[in-house]
Amino acid sequence: MNMLNVPEYVRTLGLQAKQASVQMARADAATKNKALRALARKLRAVGGPLAEANAQDLARAEGAGLSAPMIDRLKLTPKVIETVALGCEQLAAMPDVIGEVIGMKQQPSGIRVGQMRVPIGVFGMIYESRPNVTIEAASLAIKSGNAAILRGGSEAIESNKALAQLVSESLAEAGLPVDAVQLVQTTDREAVGQLIAMPEFVDVIIPRGGKGLIERISRDAKVPVIKHLDGNCHVYVDDTAELDMALKIVDNAKTQKYSPCNAAEGLLVAASIAETFLPEIGAIFAAKGVEMRCDPAAARILREGLHAPASSVVDAVESDWSEEYLAAVISVKVVEGVDEAIAHINRYSSHHTDAIVTRDHMNAQRFLREVDSASVMVNASTRFADGFEFGLGAEIGISTDKFHARGPVGIEGLTSLKYVVLGQGETRS
Amino acid sequence: MNMLNVPEYVRTLGLQAKQASVQMARADAATKNKALRALARKLRAVGGPLAEANAQDLARAEGAGLSAPMIDRLKLTPKVIETVALGCEQLAAMPDVIGEVIGMKQQPSGIRVGQMRVPIGVFGMIYESRPNVTIEAASLAIKSGNAAILRGGSEAIESNKALAQLVSESLAEAGLPVDAVQLVQTTDREAVGQLIAMPEFVDVIIPRGGKGLIERISRDAKVPVIKHLDGNCHVYVDDTAELDMALKIVDNAKTQKYSPCNAAEGLLVAASIAETFLPEIGAIFAAKGVEMRCDPAAARILREGLHAPASSVVDAVESDWSEEYLAAVISVKVVEGVDEAIAHINRYSSHHTDAIVTRDHMNAQRFLREVDSASVMVNASTRFADGFEFGLGAEIGISTDKFHARGPVGIEGLTSLKYVVLGQGETRS
Repeated sequence: MNMLNVPEYVRTLGLQAKQASVQMARADAATKNKALRALARKLRAVGGPLAEANAQDLARAEGAGLSAPMIDRLKLTPKVIETVALGCEQLAAMPDVIGEVIGMKQQPSGIRVGQMRVPIGVFGMIYESRPNVTIEAASLAIKSGNAAILRGGSEAIESNKALAQLVSESLAEAGLPVDAVQLVQTTDREAVGQLIAMPEFVDVIIPRGGKGLIERISRDAKVPVIKHLDGNCHVYVDDTAELDMALKIVDNAKTQKYSPCNAAEGLLVAASIAETFLPEIGAIFAAKGVEMRCDPAAARILREGLHAPASSVVDAVESDWSEEYLAAVISVKVVEGVDEAIAHINRYSSHHTDAIVTRDHMNAQRFLREVDSASVMVNASTRFADGFEFGLGAEIGISTDKFHARGPVGIEGLTSLKYVVLGQGETRS
Repeated sequence: MNMLNVPEYVRTLGLQAKQASVQMARADAATKNKALRALARKLRAVGGPLAEANAQDLARAEGAGLSAPMIDRLKLTPKVIETVALGCEQLAAMPDVIGEVIGMKQQPSGIRVGQMRVPIGVFGMIYESRPNVTIEAASLAIKSGNAAILRGGSEAIESNKALAQLVSESLAEAGLPVDAVQLVQTTDREAVGQLIAMPEFVDVIIPRGGKGLIERISRDAKVPVIKHLDGNCHVYVDDTAELDMALKIVDNAKTQKYSPCNAAEGLLVAASIAETFLPEIGAIFAAKGVEMRCDPAAARILREGLHAPASSVVDAVESDWSEEYLAAVISVKVVEGVDEAIAHINRYSSHHTDAIVTRDHMNAQRFLREVDSASVMVNASTRFADGFEFGLGAEIGISTDKFHARGPVGIEGLTSLKYVVLGQGETRS
């Protein structure tokens, strides 16, 4: 591809996607589900060619000295392949929301007015390393009746090409346009710049990756971006929290896995129970090697009450309240009560997911209403903020924006509602 | 205000709006409705001071040689004031959607997941001439629990200031923060540039005005824009249309009023009924002085069958198919049938509002599903595309975008849905 004119190539993908999107919007549920089931079958059957492509990527990654976690994310193990194949089948089994009409009501003029759910059109997806995202994005595009242009990481290019080939075959087998899902076949970075600047072909961009990548794309994009910046999530343990429940939830939210965006990065504890609760959670954290960055009140209680290495309790600095550690670190602060907790969260959280543990109905309601985050929870672990756990069937990303889609984004986030008016000859007077 | 630092001034408005938005989001329905009813009362009672402010604007406009329609739009007649006062009362009487929780369902893990409707936060509104928009925007902000920064046209500045004063008094009377609705008090153009570039304070910009203004704002804004570009709306008369109904609808869609964005600018007629239908609608249009810009087939039929001035039938050029005339002009084309009609509309329409007149169920369904416009209609006049006619209670604008809000935008378009999770101590495994 030495002589490739990248902007022109990406514009061609855009035009083809736009054209394919018309047929995709029109496709019935049975046809789309046929393509999804074909894709699941092909994923399970492909064997050699996909393994070979993946091995090429892995060899190149090792040669380039990529980190072990990066290489791990590149691997298409049989388990990963089975998971994405299953995901396609689950999507095929879900009801089709395209074409549903909601809220149809008769108006005083006699016309009936409702809203019909239709695909957005074309989405561009920009992601890094994990090649299974290619299948997740492709299957969501098919189910939602959209066309998609996929731009994966250069380190996974061979795997992505092999997977995209299976997607094309599945679309063709079901009689859908193969251009409905296209992979950008060049790793040239110019392709991203072009992809995000074609409002005539692409309706929305969904980036998945580091904060830097997403900020860059949001800044330069000429189309809307469904963006997920960071996940600085909190658990607030209220005065009336049941201690056992609070311990279980805080422990799970922080330590079940450190890397996900819905893991807790901040712990707030009501002053009235801090003396009881903090030493107990502190012992659990210390045993697991979790460093606690504490405000003075929490530090005092933990240092006095905790039989654990002194090194696990550290004095917090201002920047700790805003940080997404994605590691065995948590910020800890004692607050007066629910008011101060809500104020702290609305100031420092990234508006991703925040939880309260409480028995108090009034405080629970205030927290739900006033915390300005995409997901707000009572008595549940922040780790539940996820498309599958929320019952969306699948997830193309998590939005920390308020506009259009907020929180985990599934099929509905890839649709829009148009007004439908049914009349019997009414005119406006 | 000679020494005013405009960017700093607008940033102060932004900060104040952001702070007020927290209290607005928390306000209960009764308090917001109290403010709306107070506003209605004050509008009816103010008399002199408002009339004087409006007279100042009118005198300046006349001195500056503004056109008669422009001056007309500036006028705050008793009728205009009564209409906006009534609008406030109607909003007060509507149910409050803030805080409603929809779709709460139990998930396999045991958590219950639903979505709560909450205000967007702060919206900036940029508009021209008509000062009554100040009250419409203010009342929608109050009802939807948002804060708003309003930037009206410089020609209406005195009227807008007088109206904004009434809004402030009404907010104060109800115990709501007066900064919930702020008018930009300077006519300096720099204020617009600053208002659209403060993502830390303003969540969305809603421009109302000419296409040039809206394109400029969309290009330069650093926050989402609910934009309404143009309204190139169509009526397609299908093979099986009832002639009387088709005549009534096409006539109403074009001639009931020429200036609204939902007036029809294009007429498509199925070939099988063109010979019957076109001369009849042509006679109506010719009698009302509507110029018809026709493709060759329509021109031939009209020239042969129409007993009207030859000057009313003109040969269309390519640009006619895309044009929003907002005048006594309509483009006319004979098409094979519903396929060609849909293709023509999806190519040339501005995705605002398009209607089919038909008795054929299949064609009606295809039109509704496949025409990619914000409002699609069967057997009704395009003039119905309006927040009041659609039962939204009020309208802050009409969106020709697919993202977030589409079509007439009412209270719901000024809200977002956050996920609410209710647990009993569930953790993720």
